[in-house]
Amino acid sequence: MKILFIGDVVGQPGRKMIEQYVPKLKAKYKPNVVIVNGENAAGGKGITEKIYRRFLELGIHAVTLGNHTWDNREIFEFIDDAKVLIRPANFPDDVPGKGMVYVSVEGYEVAIINLQGRTFLPAIDCPFKKADELVAEASERTPIIFVDFHAEATSEKQAMGWYLDGRVSAVVGTHTHVQTADSRILPNGTAYITDVGMTGPYDGILGVEKEAVLRKFLTSLPVRFEVTSGRAQLNAVMIEVDVKTGKAKSIQRMLINDDHPYFE
Amino acid sequence: MKILFIGDVVGQPGRKMIEQYVPKLKAKYKPNVVIVNGENAAGGKGITEKIYRRFLELGIHAVTLGNHTWDNREIFEFIDDAKVLIRPANFPDDVPGKGMVYVSVEGYEVAIINLQGRTFLPAIDCPFKKADELVAEASERTPIIFVDFHAEATSEKQAMGWYLDGRVSAVVGTHTHVQTADSRILPNGTAYITDVGMTGPYDGILGVEKEAVLRKFLTSLPVRFEVTSGRAQLNAVMIEVDVKTGKAKSIQRMLINDDHPYFE
Amino acid sequence: MKILFIGDVVGQPGRKMIEQYVPKLKAKYKPNVVIVNGENAAGGKGITEKIYRRFLELGIHAVTLGNHTWDNREIFEFIDDAKVLIRPANFPDDVPGKGMVYVSVEGYEVAIINLQGRTFLPAIDCPFKKADELVAEASERTPIIFVDFHAEATSEKQAMGWYLDGRVSAVVGTHTHVQTADSRILPNGTAYITDVGMTGPYDGILGVEKEAVLRKFLTSLPVRFEVTSGRAQLNAVMIEVDVKTGKAKSIQRMLINDDHPYFE
Amino acid sequence: MKILFIGDVVGQPGRKMIEQYVPKLKAKYKPNVVIVNGENAAGGKGITEKIYRRFLELGIHAVTLGNHTWDNREIFEFIDDAKVLIRPANFPDDVPGKGMVYVSVEGYEVAIINLQGRTFLPAIDCPFKKADELVAEASERTPIIFVDFHAEATSEKQAMGWYLDGRVSAVVGTHTHVQTADSRILPNGTAYITDVGMTGPYDGILGVEKEAVLRKFLTSLPVRFEVTSGRAQLNAVMIEVDVKTGKAKSIQRMLINDDHPYFE
Ligand SMILES: [Fe+2]
Ligand SMILES: [Fe+2]
Ligand SMILES: [Fe+2]
Ligand SMILES: [Fe+2]
Ligand SMILES: [Fe+2]
Ligand SMILES: [Fe+2]
Ligand SMILES: [Fe+2]
Ligand SMILES: [Fe+2]
Repeated sequence: MKILFIGDVVGQPGRKMIEQYVPKLKAKYKPNVVIVNGENAAGGKGITEKIYRRFLELGIHAVTLGNHTWDNREIFEFIDDAKVLIRPANFPDDVPGKGMVYVSVEGYEVAIINLQGRTFLPAIDCPFKKADELVAEASERTPIIFVDFHAEATSEKQAMGWYLDGRVSAVVGTHTHVQTADSRILPNGTAYITDVGMTGPYDGILGVEKEAVLRKFLTSLPVRFEVTSGRAQLNAVMIEVDVKTGKAKSIQRMLINDDHPYFE
Repeated sequence: MKILFIGDVVGQPGRKMIEQYVPKLKAKYKPNVVIVNGENAAGGKGITEKIYRRFLELGIHAVTLGNHTWDNREIFEFIDDAKVLIRPANFPDDVPGKGMVYVSVEGYEVAIINLQGRTFLPAIDCPFKKADELVAEASERTPIIFVDFHAEATSEKQAMGWYLDGRVSAVVGTHTHVQTADSRILPNGTAYITDVGMTGPYDGILGVEKEAVLRKFLTSLPVRFEVTSGRAQLNAVMIEVDVKTGKAKSIQRMLINDDHPYFE
Repeated sequence: MKILFIGDVVGQPGRKMIEQYVPKLKAKYKPNVVIVNGENAAGGKGITEKIYRRFLELGIHAVTLGNHTWDNREIFEFIDDAKVLIRPANFPDDVPGKGMVYVSVEGYEVAIINLQGRTFLPAIDCPFKKADELVAEASERTPIIFVDFHAEATSEKQAMGWYLDGRVSAVVGTHTHVQTADSRILPNGTAYITDVGMTGPYDGILGVEKEAVLRKFLTSLPVRFEVTSGRAQLNAVMIEVDVKTGKAKSIQRMLINDDHPYFE
Repeated sequence: MKILFIGDVVGQPGRKMIEQYVPKLKAKYKPNVVIVNGENAAGGKGITEKIYRRFLELGIHAVTLGNHTWDNREIFEFIDDAKVLIRPANFPDDVPGKGMVYVSVEGYEVAIINLQGRTFLPAIDCPFKKADELVAEASERTPIIFVDFHAEATSEKQAMGWYLDGRVSAVVGTHTHVQTADSRILPNGTAYITDVGMTGPYDGILGVEKEAVLRKFLTSLPVRFEVTSGRAQLNAVMIEVDVKTGKAKSIQRMLINDDHPYFE
């Protein structure tokens, strides 16, 4: 089974890349499952129901989120009905939405989990303890378990990779918006990458207009962050999983940008 | 001119990789300048005079540092005499050591600057303002200026890349210990990568024994971080610079580990 | 010379306390100088020109600010013309506004400085170095120097008190919105208190509606912080300074709230 | 019932104040219960068994802790046998020690709880959720419940006060080492103070040698923090509780230092 995971979609430039490349990537690589991190899909801040529904129309099976989950307040109106929208599972119990969903494809069930780190991020419940709980639950239904660990610190992400190695099919990091070059299969069969990277502007700073970010660093004055325009990029990984054992067989990084053009 | 930069050397496993591969990489790729980040060279924490001197014996031209500069207190005894040891330039003025050095190779001068970020790191002077100052100073002597920006946040690192684009030959990030896949030549000719990655253990967490790091995340109890043993890796970049203009012509990432073996 | 300093005025409840008590306190205690921290005066977030002007009409001599200086964007339009509006001096050089003003009262000049801490607050220039610079400058005109150090950490605030002891008349802390009980004259003659406390709602959390703050702590969801209504409080200090030497002779804490009612 | 709570005892100067004043305060005010925060009792970092036992000999009924609980590794050897040593209850479940103890005095049981905040402190379990759990458990045995909330941010501490108002007898803050002037009885009968303050050196920075702390702020270099010598202080609160209802009747702040001398 092949799982295509596309990193944080940022604003309109990111959504355009999704529109343009998801059909192409599906045609060319034939992934069985397509997952997208959508925490920045609506103007860089959260996601709307319209965007979520459009993702599904494009054949995306599930949408994960992160620390920007709640930025667009429309989320509170549709999250409970959005069957394959997954917010970090380790938010406190009484928070809306769900942190794990099961997707059925071609007779197999895939459990998809979203977790959020705590290093350099707001205090929430322990992602490691929550992972134990959800992985135990999922393991009773399927060996194919995919984890999007949305976190800042490389240490916390590598820790999660090692912690879940052999218990899940994949731990892929998101949030830093920069793809890392450390994709690998860990010794017990879990595919791992510290960060998949983002999908959106290629010439901004994490997708944001660079003049604003620089002004912030230079003056410490408040600035309004807007998604920048111009050239775009898509960052993703393709993971192949043995459906019997849930072990990963390979993890392949994908970069589509002007320095790494896509060839049909 | 070719500049080989090797990311954070971590403990004995990292030093062994340096011993083994610096001669090979010099023989094979013939870099004109070799720079190593040595902030974790002594047991993961700082650097000793003996290690620094050994690096020079191996033909390394300069050693940059970072937030771990002062971890091994021996540094205070030899930093002032260590001509090519560079600590972050934006520490306050009365701190020992220097933040920029000039290296002369084959008739050319290369200015090498070390800066440290402030996002998720202790408060020091502004790295952007300090960069302005040092780049102006260096530009009067040479167009070849190399910057190791030791920082945590991808936003701050990308911001520095764009800020210095066209003014320096290269901005390479260090500190997260994970190589990023975003190496590129920015529009005005500066080679850029968010993080070069580390050189040391391949199966730890940023070079540290993973049981200890996991215990920390799971319990919040204090733990002693020890450099782990076992398989090792080397992460580096090779940058080619036009000696007339100082513009970068290429930036090439290097990974040496069991998943990306070195071929003679 | 008597200096009355009133801590962070929060929203309408805080401004009402100012309207009500500044005339009373002036009549009763006859301070020569009245200074107010106004960083939260406009709905908890920043200050407007109208509020600033009203403060002056009430006989307030200078208004200090803090990390909320820029929250109400109207500030950018009037800060340059507002002669006695003081924002933290250690913002970078190209930021609008000024960090020190001189107020002339009864033949004496009083230098008033605003500084902002860096512990648990955004990175800006070093408040200690900036203090050295401004105190040296002010000392050439007057021995009476008043410092509002807007900072979070008790360690950084006590450090500033000791650092400036004997060089300024007073170092008073603001920002935590809770008055501390450690007012004292330091050995070399500087009046010191870690935090003066706030002026505004008495039954909120730092002036904010408590349900919102609790929801934030319990769920980590984003919440809108509104200044709460109901009973109000005023927190201040009265400092007596020897006009010849600039040394403080006394520092007196003031609390006005339902548990510490004001007596005419 | 009268409960005397003494704030963070720092090093030998703090322990000397305990030796000297606990007998005096017991003789003069006749508290029924004496509780001391001991997280800094051993050289500023943690506590030893010897110190803990000495506290009990002096008639102290329970010792609370905080973020420095684990600094002296001796704690791991005696915490499980130390019947009235209380570490923050919201550390993860598998951490040694206990977060609540019951003390029996004169026929009444007092539940004593220690919790730690998460704002500007390492990520642990939610103190509010843990408070719910422990208060529910304790309420089945006794209405007299005392909470030491060890936290940095004034917002988090006030939030806890309001959250538990009417459910516990007292919420007293510790950790900032500076006593606040906001002691009060909240509307539903809970005694509250944001911080009790520390017991130890009077002329350091939070008990630490001030030259070292200043060097840290001025240079960002690592420094060794040592408990300073010289004059000492004791900070405490006395809370009177109705044993039938568990409601607080009064909370009285105590400062003993050269500016507020103790009178027999
Ligand atoms: Fe994102
Ligand atoms: Fe994110
Ligand atoms: Fe490093
Ligand atoms: Fe580092
Ligand atoms: Fe404020
Ligand atoms: Fe503030
Ligand atoms: Fe303490
Ligand atoms: Fe503490």
